[in-house]
Amino acid sequence: MKCTCSIVAVAALLLNTVSAQTFRRLGACPTLGCVFPPDQADFLAGQYFDIRLEVHQPVNGSEVIGLPLDEKFTFTIAKKGAAAKPVTEYFKLREPKLEKWNFTWFEDLFARDAKKPSLVNVASKAYRRVALYEPGEYTATLTYNNGSTTKAEWVVRDLAEERKTKNIILFIGDGMTTNMITAARLIGHKSINGKYQSLMAMDKFPVLGHQMTHSIDSFITDSANSAAALNTGHKSTVNCLNVYADSSKDAFDDPKVETIAEMFHRLTGGHIGIVSTAYIADATPAALVAHTRNRGAYAAIVDQYLNGVQNYTWSNTPVDVIFGGGAEQFYSPKLGGVTYQDKDYYQEFAKKDYQIIQNRTSLQALDSSKKALGIFTVSNMAKWLDRNVYRDNLNQSLSPAGDKKAALDQPGLKDMTLKAIDILEKRSGDKGWLLMSEAASIDKMMHVLDYDRALGELLELDDTIKATIAHLNSTNCLKETLILVTADHGHGFDVMGSVDTHYLAAQNVDRKKRDAIGTYEQSGLSQYANTGNLTYTDSNFPSNWDPRYTLFQGLMADPDRREDWTVRKDGPRVPATAANGTKDYYASPKDSENGILLNGTLPVENDQGVHSLTDVPVFAMGPCQELFGGVYSSIDIFYGMAECLGLARGTPPKQ
Amino acid sequence: MKCTCSIVAVAALLLNTVSAQTFRRLGACPTLGCVFPPDQADFLAGQYFDIRLEVHQPVNGSEVIGLPLDEKFTFTIAKKGAAAKPVTEYFKLREPKLEKWNFTWFEDLFARDAKKPSLVNVASKAYRRVALYEPGEYTATLTYNNGSTTKAEWVVRDLAEERKTKNIILFIGDGMTTNMITAARLIGHKSINGKYQSLMAMDKFPVLGHQMTHSIDSFITDSANSAAALNTGHKSTVNCLNVYADSSKDAFDDPKVETIAEMFHRLTGGHIGIVSTAYIADATPAALVAHTRNRGAYAAIVDQYLNGVQNYTWSNTPVDVIFGGGAEQFYSPKLGGVTYQDKDYYQEFAKKDYQIIQNRTSLQALDSSKKALGIFTVSNMAKWLDRNVYRDNLNQSLSPAGDKKAALDQPGLKDMTLKAIDILEKRSGDKGWLLMSEAASIDKMMHVLDYDRALGELLELDDTIKATIAHLNSTNCLKETLILVTADHGHGFDVMGSVDTHYLAAQNVDRKKRDAIGTYEQSGLSQYANTGNLTYTDSNFPSNWDPRYTLFQGLMADPDRREDWTVRKDGPRVPATAANGTKDYYASPKDSENGILLNGTLPVENDQGVHSLTDVPVFAMGPCQELFGGVYSSIDIFYGMAECLGLARGTPPKQ
Repeated sequence: MKCTCSIVAVAALLLNTVSAQTFRRLGACPTLGCVFPPDQADFLAGQYFDIRLEVHQPVNGSEVIGLPLDEKFTFTIAKKGAAAKPVTEYFKLREPKLEKWNFTWFEDLFARDAKKPSLVNVASKAYRRVALYEPGEYTATLTYNNGSTTKAEWVVRDLAEERKTKNIILFIGDGMTTNMITAARLIGHKSINGKYQSLMAMDKFPVLGHQMTHSIDSFITDSANSAAALNTGHKSTVNCLNVYADSSKDAFDDPKVETIAEMFHRLTGGHIGIVSTAYIADATPAALVAHTRNRGAYAAIVDQYLNGVQNYTWSNTPVDVIFGGGAEQFYSPKLGGVTYQDKDYYQEFAKKDYQIIQNRTSLQALDSSKKALGIFTVSNMAKWLDRNVYRDNLNQSLSPAGDKKAALDQPGLKDMTLKAIDILEKRSGDKGWLLMSEAASIDKMMHVLDYDRALGELLELDDTIKATIAHLNSTNCLKETLILVTADHGHGFDVMGSVDTHYLAAQNVDRKKRDAIGTYEQSGLSQYANTGNLTYTDSNFPSNWDPRYTLFQGLMADPDRREDWTVRKDGPRVPATAANGTKDYYASPKDSENGILLNGTLPVENDQGVHSLTDVPVFAMGPCQELFGGVYSSIDIFYGMAECLGLARGTPPKQ
Repeated sequence: MKCTCSIVAVAALLLNTVSAQTFRRLGACPTLGCVFPPDQADFLAGQYFDIRLEVHQPVNGSEVIGLPLDEKFTFTIAKKGAAAKPVTEYFKLREPKLEKWNFTWFEDLFARDAKKPSLVNVASKAYRRVALYEPGEYTATLTYNNGSTTKAEWVVRDLAEERKTKNIILFIGDGMTTNMITAARLIGHKSINGKYQSLMAMDKFPVLGHQMTHSIDSFITDSANSAAALNTGHKSTVNCLNVYADSSKDAFDDPKVETIAEMFHRLTGGHIGIVSTAYIADATPAALVAHTRNRGAYAAIVDQYLNGVQNYTWSNTPVDVIFGGGAEQFYSPKLGGVTYQDKDYYQEFAKKDYQIIQNRTSLQALDSSKKALGIFTVSNMAKWLDRNVYRDNLNQSLSPAGDKKAALDQPGLKDMTLKAIDILEKRSGDKGWLLMSEAASIDKMMHVLDYDRALGELLELDDTIKATIAHLNSTNCLKETLILVTADHGHGFDVMGSVDTHYLAAQNVDRKKRDAIGTYEQSGLSQYANTGNLTYTDSNFPSNWDPRYTLFQGLMADPDRREDWTVRKDGPRVPATAANGTKDYYASPKDSENGILLNGTLPVENDQGVHSLTDVPVFAMGPCQELFGGVYSSIDIFYGMAECLGLARGTPPKQ
């Protein structure tokens, strides 16, 4: 593998991740013989994947068995009822070369404190880009260490190949839970005597489901891991994008799995669009086509959007539309950019016939018949609340050109999504399209306990969904488009009552301030939707973000912080700070100075909240909507979309 | 009204409630002229309800207008497109006598601190037990104070009268949220590489919905209020059971609304059953047939089960099966009971041909052809965890006989529910039945932050659902029974990771203890389902309740408390205590002594957590299941059940 600067940095990052891994040697491998894809994996018929085998020889720690490293392990595959065949015979492959490395891990927190890592030597092989076509059950068997076996039971699901939808739009509210939707409805929609006078667009979807978001090897997921499950139908490990995590240091050699976007393009020529309010190399947008064990390899991910996975035989899936933030992975390192191989990625995309735009005005003027890259800011895009209410907060040096000016003319999620649909519709013709549109900062603002901004982002997502339905209806595309709205994980958020912020501010003692909290009948009614006179071109946002009685809301896992439950008018919240150079976070003295001081429960190196376990909602409308009702695993979203697009293949493609 | 001791106490309680009401004069009445049912009320055609009118004359405070109390107000009703008629003419009623009273309230917390209540004089009339039969829109108009008007827009929903189900079973997980179901699944069901090897019974229901639980006049509900919405199709006020809250002191004169159970029995002769793990006079069971503004009127509620509403013309709906706790409202005051009119309610029920039982053994021996009252303990029933794992905790003086012995032989929710079904099935014949079965202590244990017990109760509910489906299937009743599973409100609960309890206990400083928390990839896997060797006759409960790595779980609104995230082996948790005679709660020095000290956010008079806003899930299976998908108001559960039972009536019943 040809390593560049940024990739080397990435590998070092990964090494840290593995070293700090408590509780287990390697996530989906409890034994000393590892098979990836592991036991219990499901596959879509015809979906490409890599196989990675590892045999572990623990050198110290609790797992030492005193055998030398086994370099002669064997691997077979058997379809149920048929004889097992060596993997090379089964897939008609040549035997790859043996790889060897080692890694360390800590068995628990005591071992970490004592700085006593356990060392493991590894012998490994990888088989690249294979596929199973025949639906049914398979047993993959790794034999190692003089007859030990690790068996993986695989299922190739039996799905119809018939296509039922032309297009799919997948809306992701990153970190969005049912609890947050309930809160957003309360502040954005008027209610009279308990009857809402208007509802969220999501509320009107005909089919509701819940998806379980847990990882393959931990019950709390991150956005990379969960997005990979939605996009590939395979659960994976935190920080992984469309790969299973092996134990090697290289963040790009982990066994890959083909995504829905890649299959859709490869098999039908369908067109792909990616829209996000995050920096565009962030995990959720990256999961459409990128493959790496390290979601933090931003520069390489941007390159993968353009050029596909650089090493190991794999497909390159063109993306018609890419709209979002993260300009620092595009403009030249001379301007401070951090790009793949130090190239200017605005130029790289332009060379491949992308229209390059950097503001809302240009977005609206785009030629819908051509590919488009729209990067509207450094880092994450501005929040709805700052773009629409507290506009002074836009005055920061975040211009996407890298010229340190302010990015004042940023589009919202609605602008980006509607334009992306126009381009995809025009360019795809009869082939159809798949668009992922992400409200990324629901999550980002929940992380920093900025509940108001998070709910503003959620209401913007809902407004985007409403506008999308109207737009598809106006172009007669609604009936041939499956619309899904879901999340990738939750945050432990809820609303428990109201706060009389005037009363809280007027008290001098924390225990007295707490009397400002009104629960049950004293929670009263929402003043966000029923007082104030803010109006927007968009409907169903609060008419008052700063009422006297605010929501008594919060997260369940926090750093130390102060709470006064008022909107942050100066921009996104910074709840906790640490002395320079330390990671010992305390409540920020500058955040809600007049609030109640609360000690956190998270380890003190955390300056923000974390994700949570809860199942997240799925709203479905359009062709195949019935596939998305009830309760299921996150991977079933992939299988539902694949079934609706008719992507299963019972036989290999003709050469 | 004939007042007894207990009723007088109740009225005093209510007075307190009104006096302490911050933020509003009277919930669903923002103007000085009040109409109940208020604006935006929906009705089932033929559903009985009372009308209450009030005209308010504020004597002091911000609302004084200087007019004398108007005793000559008028009230008309008009169907859309038709002329308005005086209410007496519309319903062919005689004019009731004018009532007068006054009440006080505090306009905000500053007024409360300053002890400056606002006084309001009231003139009022009530029209009892009327019904609207013709579907459509109505305008009810109160004219008062020289021409001021309060208009109430009412809708009588247009539902089919055709019956589609023979039976309905409504399972209520009190306080149960999607977040809790996710956590219960994690501890009760094994998972291999991210794939669950078994699922919750709820997970397998074909239709999923979300219901909004807010009150008519506050966005956080209690269990009385929300149960009233589910049972009547009318949103109401905290503490109300199947009435709208008026401002009078009498807790039994508030305007009533007919419940689904009452209509089902009145119109079709269907049979009713009530099962709960709470004391049986608690809000959720009471909401089947009781009517009062004060859910705390326990003794009167028990009397209502037997004799109906004592005053004001109303129906008396017989209940075939009543199983639960709360023996103190049954046994004689000589034994310490607190009963209605000091009677022995075991005797009262026996006089009306109920079989009276007090333990699990007798439950199983019941004659299914006769009515049954089963009261198995004083107060709430023992928790699943104490009945099955920590059985020593049953040794308390809670015998249902009132003899201060222990209640050792208590049935579980499953025992009670299956027996109730047998009795209802046998007694109802072709007429069908409606059973409400409540897992009450999900809520009660969440209130005291006893997460393990709460999840145990949730798993017991799920086990009951599973057994119910199997039982109905075995008797060929499954196809003619609509099964609904839902909650009445949430608690802000979630799981954010795991806790290394050994490491936590080994540290001396709180900030270091926090390092025991593992988030994301360090959350690891559930040890509850995958370690330990506990087994039960019931399946799918944890095999280990006390693993080294526990759930990092919690609520978002708490009193001061300590957390060590371990199971409470000595019985339900008491997180906060106050010095005798005070209501100034601090973390209990006896609860998790070795845990992290956390300050709460709730007013310091709270010793436990509170309810939350989140929409709660609805799982539906059976006839009409399709009515319960998507997102809707809690009242739509009533309309769905009513439609499925064909209870709408376009014309008055024949005299």
